[in-house]
Amino acid sequence: MRQNPERRTALVDAAIEVLADQGARGLTFRAVDSRAGVPVGTASNYFPNRDALLMQAGQRVFQRLDPGADVVGEALALPRTRATVERLMHEMVGRITAFGSGYLAMLELRLEATRRPELAKVLTEQIRENVQQNIRFHLEAGMPGDAETVELLYLALSWLIVERLTLPDVFGEERTAALVTAAVNQIVPPR
Amino acid sequence: MRQNPERRTALVDAAIEVLADQGARGLTFRAVDSRAGVPVGTASNYFPNRDALLMQAGQRVFQRLDPGADVVGEALALPRTRATVERLMHEMVGRITAFGSGYLAMLELRLEATRRPELAKVLTEQIRENVQQNIRFHLEAGMPGDAETVELLYLALSWLIVERLTLPDVFGEERTAALVTAAVNQIVPPR
Repeated sequence: MRQNPERRTALVDAAIEVLADQGARGLTFRAVDSRAGVPVGTASNYFPNRDALLMQAGQRVFQRLDPGADVVGEALALPRTRATVERLMHEMVGRITAFGSGYLAMLELRLEATRRPELAKVLTEQIRENVQQNIRFHLEAGMPGDAETVELLYLALSWLIVERLTLPDVFGEERTAALVTAAVNQIVPPR
Repeated sequence: MRQNPERRTALVDAAIEVLADQGARGLTFRAVDSRAGVPVGTASNYFPNRDALLMQAGQRVFQRLDPGADVVGEALALPRTRATVERLMHEMVGRITAFGSGYLAMLELRLEATRRPELAKVLTEQIRENVQQNIRFHLEAGMPGDAETVELLYLALSWLIVERLTLPDVFGEERTAALVTAAVNQIVPPR
């Protein structure tokens, strides 16, 4: 197998777009080649099978959704208050919504996981680790609340993003922002 | 077109199972005929096109998820306290999780709606009406909290059900129940 890392990443990114556009069933090596604008047969040189491509797509979504050192650094320069958590949650919802194809691809992967135990195993580890990371960040930074606070925020905001990306008119943009604030105010203790 | 209502319902129910099992892309008239155990060509006699079938599947999921007069009657016989809301939310999460194929089919429909504006319009109306119904029930029954309380519960519990149905080991059964209670305690005012 060829090992050009940039091309591999471009193929995984193309797979994310195919998942979001056409669903898990539309994800074929041929569709990925076409989306990435590379010759037919390229993706099959990089991934041993479709499952490997699905798993790497899931990992890549999380990688691209990482807030990065700047956002984390800014957060840690702020006081450990509910207002700071609110700011971080607005930033997070905005960041994830802006990469809509990534989030939709993750939903497709979750649905595909109900049919593929091996994928379910990998995604479960990934999501669990992501929730744990969020909890660790919150607690180590000394933000108000405990592990359960973080879990409840994760639940409420995850669905708010689903709503925003699949049926954006159920809650409009303004109401969505208000619900982020409301979720933080209800779930996070004042200090 | 033939108009046997029981057969129509059986076909729509079969469509829900096909959506949950094989995704929106797997939903063909032929797959529905096969799932319903009826002769090939039956579904195409009942629905003018695939979109009509998708929309009726969405309506049918809500119909089947309706708690029914007994659950509502029981709820209205209880005191208007947070503990009662908690009981209702456990009942609701249990009821929806038990009809997993219906909820997974709704997720497939939401994803399909990102590709089909006509379906998005119908689902938006349906979800909006469902949220409004929940709000009306809560307020008219005199349960503690306001419209926003109901919206926040809807957000948190909707994702908890996604988690339960797609990656059940992220939060196990016990933790899921604890998170229902925690969500109610954080979001619903004490009285």
